[in-house]
Amino acid sequence: MTETSSRLLDKIASPADLRKLSVSELPDLAAEIRKEIIRVVSKTGGHLGSSLGVVELTIALHYVFNTPDDRLIWDVGHQAYAHKLLTGRREKFERLRCEGGLSGFPKRSESPFDAFGAGHSSTSVSAAVGMAAARDILGRKNNVVAVIGDGSMSAGMAFEALNNAGDKNTRMVVVLNDNDMSIAPPVGALSHHLSQIISSKQYMTLRQAAIDMAEKLPQFVKTAALRVGQHAKGLITGGTMFEELGLYYVGPIDGHNFEQLIPILTNVRDAPEDYPIVVHVLTQKGHGYTPAEKQPSKFHGVSAFDIDTGEMLPKKNSKPSYTGVFSDMICDLAAQDPKVAAITAAMPSGTGLDVFAERFPNRFFDVGIAEQHAVTFAAGLACEGIKPYVALYSSFLQRAYDQILHDVALQSLPVRFAIDRAGFVGEDGATHNGVFDLAMLCPMPNMVVMAPSDQAELRSMLLTMNGINDRPSAVRYPRGSGPLSDLPDVVEPLEIGKGRIVREGNRVALLSIGTRLKACLDAADILSLNGVSATVADARFAKPFDENLLLELIEGHQSISVVEEGVEGGFGALILTWLANHGLLEKTKIRFITVPDRFIEQASAERQAEIARIDARSIAQKVLETVR
Amino acid sequence: MTETSSRLLDKIASPADLRKLSVSELPDLAAEIRKEIIRVVSKTGGHLGSSLGVVELTIALHYVFNTPDDRLIWDVGHQAYAHKLLTGRREKFERLRCEGGLSGFPKRSESPFDAFGAGHSSTSVSAAVGMAAARDILGRKNNVVAVIGDGSMSAGMAFEALNNAGDKNTRMVVVLNDNDMSIAPPVGALSHHLSQIISSKQYMTLRQAAIDMAEKLPQFVKTAALRVGQHAKGLITGGTMFEELGLYYVGPIDGHNFEQLIPILTNVRDAPEDYPIVVHVLTQKGHGYTPAEKQPSKFHGVSAFDIDTGEMLPKKNSKPSYTGVFSDMICDLAAQDPKVAAITAAMPSGTGLDVFAERFPNRFFDVGIAEQHAVTFAAGLACEGIKPYVALYSSFLQRAYDQILHDVALQSLPVRFAIDRAGFVGEDGATHNGVFDLAMLCPMPNMVVMAPSDQAELRSMLLTMNGINDRPSAVRYPRGSGPLSDLPDVVEPLEIGKGRIVREGNRVALLSIGTRLKACLDAADILSLNGVSATVADARFAKPFDENLLLELIEGHQSISVVEEGVEGGFGALILTWLANHGLLEKTKIRFITVPDRFIEQASAERQAEIARIDARSIAQKVLETVR
Repeated sequence: MTETSSRLLDKIASPADLRKLSVSELPDLAAEIRKEIIRVVSKTGGHLGSSLGVVELTIALHYVFNTPDDRLIWDVGHQAYAHKLLTGRREKFERLRCEGGLSGFPKRSESPFDAFGAGHSSTSVSAAVGMAAARDILGRKNNVVAVIGDGSMSAGMAFEALNNAGDKNTRMVVVLNDNDMSIAPPVGALSHHLSQIISSKQYMTLRQAAIDMAEKLPQFVKTAALRVGQHAKGLITGGTMFEELGLYYVGPIDGHNFEQLIPILTNVRDAPEDYPIVVHVLTQKGHGYTPAEKQPSKFHGVSAFDIDTGEMLPKKNSKPSYTGVFSDMICDLAAQDPKVAAITAAMPSGTGLDVFAERFPNRFFDVGIAEQHAVTFAAGLACEGIKPYVALYSSFLQRAYDQILHDVALQSLPVRFAIDRAGFVGEDGATHNGVFDLAMLCPMPNMVVMAPSDQAELRSMLLTMNGINDRPSAVRYPRGSGPLSDLPDVVEPLEIGKGRIVREGNRVALLSIGTRLKACLDAADILSLNGVSATVADARFAKPFDENLLLELIEGHQSISVVEEGVEGGFGALILTWLANHGLLEKTKIRFITVPDRFIEQASAERQAEIARIDARSIAQKVLETVR
Repeated sequence: MTETSSRLLDKIASPADLRKLSVSELPDLAAEIRKEIIRVVSKTGGHLGSSLGVVELTIALHYVFNTPDDRLIWDVGHQAYAHKLLTGRREKFERLRCEGGLSGFPKRSESPFDAFGAGHSSTSVSAAVGMAAARDILGRKNNVVAVIGDGSMSAGMAFEALNNAGDKNTRMVVVLNDNDMSIAPPVGALSHHLSQIISSKQYMTLRQAAIDMAEKLPQFVKTAALRVGQHAKGLITGGTMFEELGLYYVGPIDGHNFEQLIPILTNVRDAPEDYPIVVHVLTQKGHGYTPAEKQPSKFHGVSAFDIDTGEMLPKKNSKPSYTGVFSDMICDLAAQDPKVAAITAAMPSGTGLDVFAERFPNRFFDVGIAEQHAVTFAAGLACEGIKPYVALYSSFLQRAYDQILHDVALQSLPVRFAIDRAGFVGEDGATHNGVFDLAMLCPMPNMVVMAPSDQAELRSMLLTMNGINDRPSAVRYPRGSGPLSDLPDVVEPLEIGKGRIVREGNRVALLSIGTRLKACLDAADILSLNGVSATVADARFAKPFDENLLLELIEGHQSISVVEEGVEGGFGALILTWLANHGLLEKTKIRFITVPDRFIEQASAERQAEIARIDARSIAQKVLETVR
């Protein structure tokens, strides 16, 4: 990287300042922004590739559209760094993804320019259709623009929204940011369709675009006037799927070329008719930074790295990660059992299934960003005697709530859920924290729910799941490394519904599910210093939970504190209801140490646990209250 | 209806018998089946129109495909009555949708011919892709056929599955049962696209189909061999969206004509290449029964009716239904407040929004079967200051879990959820029971959750919601009539988080949320006969709940029983955790009367409550245990 000034960026306190620049100055501004993003993200980590890919597009959108009156909605939102730099957040950008700093995603509470918060994929078009409808009800005239990646298009929710948008004469713009790469290379027939469009057309030049708009718009107006339940355009022109869905299609255009972006977006903005328009823009992930261009998957989400080499800085913790342990174990299981299959939703590398995909390609299924389909697809596999493991992040599993309940649990099909990123995830913040899975899954009949306290337990749980063939089972485990440096050679399955006592004490008891065990043991040390002897138990199973273990703890202790890295309504709720209905509540003092009833923002995962008051010190404090 | 024999149907114990008939006998068989369906459903009620529409298609599928080895998957499953009659369940059909009788939907535990259970829409293609993948892993050769309606195609999940299917060379068949009518007339651009295909083509005759197959298949084989990330077909032929998604398209064909159905399905079955094929079949809802043909919406789901006239038999209970009260109240609110808007997902009549749609068309949005989009669309409206009321059935709201959490609750947007069919719904059974909503919503931060105990309270709650502009709110209410015959003239809003005491007693307390109040009052009568004086309270708000009311009940009673028509993890869990963490559990005896941890099958809603042991007698019994 050569040193460049930030003379243009320095002048921009808001998009109003941007609009004072000439188009010829915009490439220099893009270079400055790119440099600033690389500089900050090399320290904070973050979603580098996607943000670098849309620098020109971001500038062009704010240049052409009158934000924030015109609504600009970023899908997923991990690509919004340039947007943040242009909308009055340059100083705070230094603390991107840090506690008290800027969120890594758009957030309505952070800026009026963040028209809609995001984090999960494929919501932008729905929000845009809603905002456009509101504008029409209120008689306003503003534009509404959603920017959505080609990967996000594979989610059914985006289709639902396009299907609805194409049904109305609503003025709105969907910018399809096509980088042929969401997190992993995209899958699904739609992505082939997009490639096909691109290969069958030249980049649209300014002249072409002008001709195209001029040619199509009058017809467009005519069609719009005529259309009573018909969308002849697509069929007549042999056009794109978008046209068949009733949206006007423009593109493809070069997303790094202001000579195309500015006039075409201006034309779209000034289109005389109220109609939904898709602008198909081609961008390159990581554009302008060679290491990211070369390894787009690696640079999708990065930790701190060396700018010159692109090398990630070594992590402090070199203990095996849960993801890595899952990755190894699922391969071991598949090697031994030809019925083991693995499914992911666009996260082969994030879930550790990339290794499985290479070793067992015919039993690996990446269905794209399509969690609903992933789960019911797995249900279909299970019906036929295959043993599907669905590997998803906890917060994305939320997309498949009904499918887990209606297609899997109700039919008691043995689908295995490997839930990564459960609990606090740190810098990605509230949208990505996996704190709802226990409350989601525990109330579902037939479901076995486990959480390991270390990597060895995760292996045992995966082996245990492989033997559960009459009902669904789930294991939830966190992001990052576990407490063990070395794992035992032998993996033993667990007895279903059986927990264990980890530390014997005699006055109070701590019952932990999952990775809060470490905090509970530390809390026991603190309690010990305060003269309170604590038993610590590892529940292992949230459902069915170990009733005998619970009775044992009740019998021998003044109080029991149940600790879970999740919101109320999960493990603790099951225990509490059971105790109440067995008349056991009166016999003991019980406390619940859960994630509180509010969203916890970005910070390190450790700090998030402190803020949620489920860290060792907070646990010790709460337990002490029970004996005072 | 003229009397016809059932001479052909009498011979059919399974599809193997069906296959012994000649094609020329099939129309008579269809007439017999149709008559039997009408006869039984006129007594039991059920989904008449959709089942009558697919009689010929069902016969043809079982005639051509080797079920159950070939897998036949019915989407939603409400159209599977002919399927049940042909697959060894004719005797039990008499007790369709009755307790201990046949489910109104396919159910794996009921028959090996029910390859995949259903109830909710748009799952069939996902399950079929999974079963086809399993077949390929296992090296089997069976066919997999999914039958999906055009309405169900608007759900994103179906798109996710088609997108995935079109990406592979997987042998499977998707029968698109196009009746231009899901429950209400379909909406969305896709349905226009389907109409457009139909109007641009003639019905495919046998000769045409043969030519078409012969012409396309070789090209098809060629394309399949060539395709490395490309799907040229759609673009070259200007074909359908299905072709652009990589599926081979056949149709449209007349779904009531065996001369077309049998040979074309046979050709599809015998297609030499492994490829996903869409067969576009046109059917008429209610076909063969004039009243149902004329009024397809009315005859989608019916109660008992007179066969000759098509008139529904009068219902026993003529008190206003909750749906009707919602319908009136939302119109009143909209008349007074120009910012009130209403959204539904293909249920304008079921939710009572049909009246709103007529009176306020520019503020009414039916987005199709697309609950995910419905919720985030509403979030978009809320961002702009509109007051959206999203009216959905409780069990279908499950589809939008992540959207409620990530797009609405996290941003604390004032979207209002009007949740109909909450609690037990009766004859539709386990897939439709709305018993998870409280467990789903209560753990979500920022959410206000209400449940009325009568129709007047529902009105008050809707008015209350209209004033909640800083966070989401939800009201859940049941199917059918409420306890009040007349409603007061004046509607007053409620104080948020405030419950009320309905009956004063002094020994035990019952705290009810929602419509279990009646059962609690009846239980109090039973308790009174047993010498136990009971206070009964109506919580009104599950979240935030009335802490003072709870303290009052604790203070004055030996025990408190919390009653909810929902699974563990909802209202009771919130109360319990709060009591535990305030050290109040030790001071009282508390019991939880919830829906048990298993799925409750079809029966009358009253019987379902008994089976779940949340009826008056069970409540009284459980409460008595607390004082003995």
